[in-house]
Amino acid sequence: MKATVLIRPKEGILDPQGEAVGEALRTLGYAVTSARVGRLVDVDLEVDDPAEAEEALAAMSRDLLANPMIESFTIEIEDGA
Amino acid sequence: MKATVLIRPKEGILDPQGEAVGEALRTLGYAVTSARVGRLVDVDLEVDDPAEAEEALAAMSRDLLANPMIESFTIEIEDGA
Repeated sequence: MKATVLIRPKEGILDPQGEAVGEALRTLGYAVTSARVGRLVDVDLEVDDPAEAEEALAAMSRDLLANPMIESFTIEIEDGA
Repeated sequence: MKATVLIRPKEGILDPQGEAVGEALRTLGYAVTSARVGRLVDVDLEVDDPAEAEEALAAMSRDLLANPMIESFTIEIEDGA
């Protein structure tokens, strides 16, 4: 089962990389108010049950993928369709 | 208008960070076949028309956010809902 974990700096946490990207985009002439930079991890899991996969991915995110002190994560399970 | 650009290493492009994450997850006992690591950028745009926003975001991605040689990008426009 394929899934994606989206990891973002929590609201209120300083994001200097996002600020630099926003500033660079404005310099290039784009009407950007703000930009925040995060990570994504595409994971291929040997699990067939979506609920079980989501639980495993939440555990992985807490254990390794995200830093829960400063980052939030969301999990998107890919439909078999 | 809020939108997110998702940037991933193209298929066939080596992703050592993803390989390291996959290996670490397997070491922790998770049944992970593969992992690929990418970036995401949340952008707040001063544009009201979704089509215009998507066009601007594609241009930003080509200009600055992604490296089209080795990365692909997808754009998700947030509904006002």
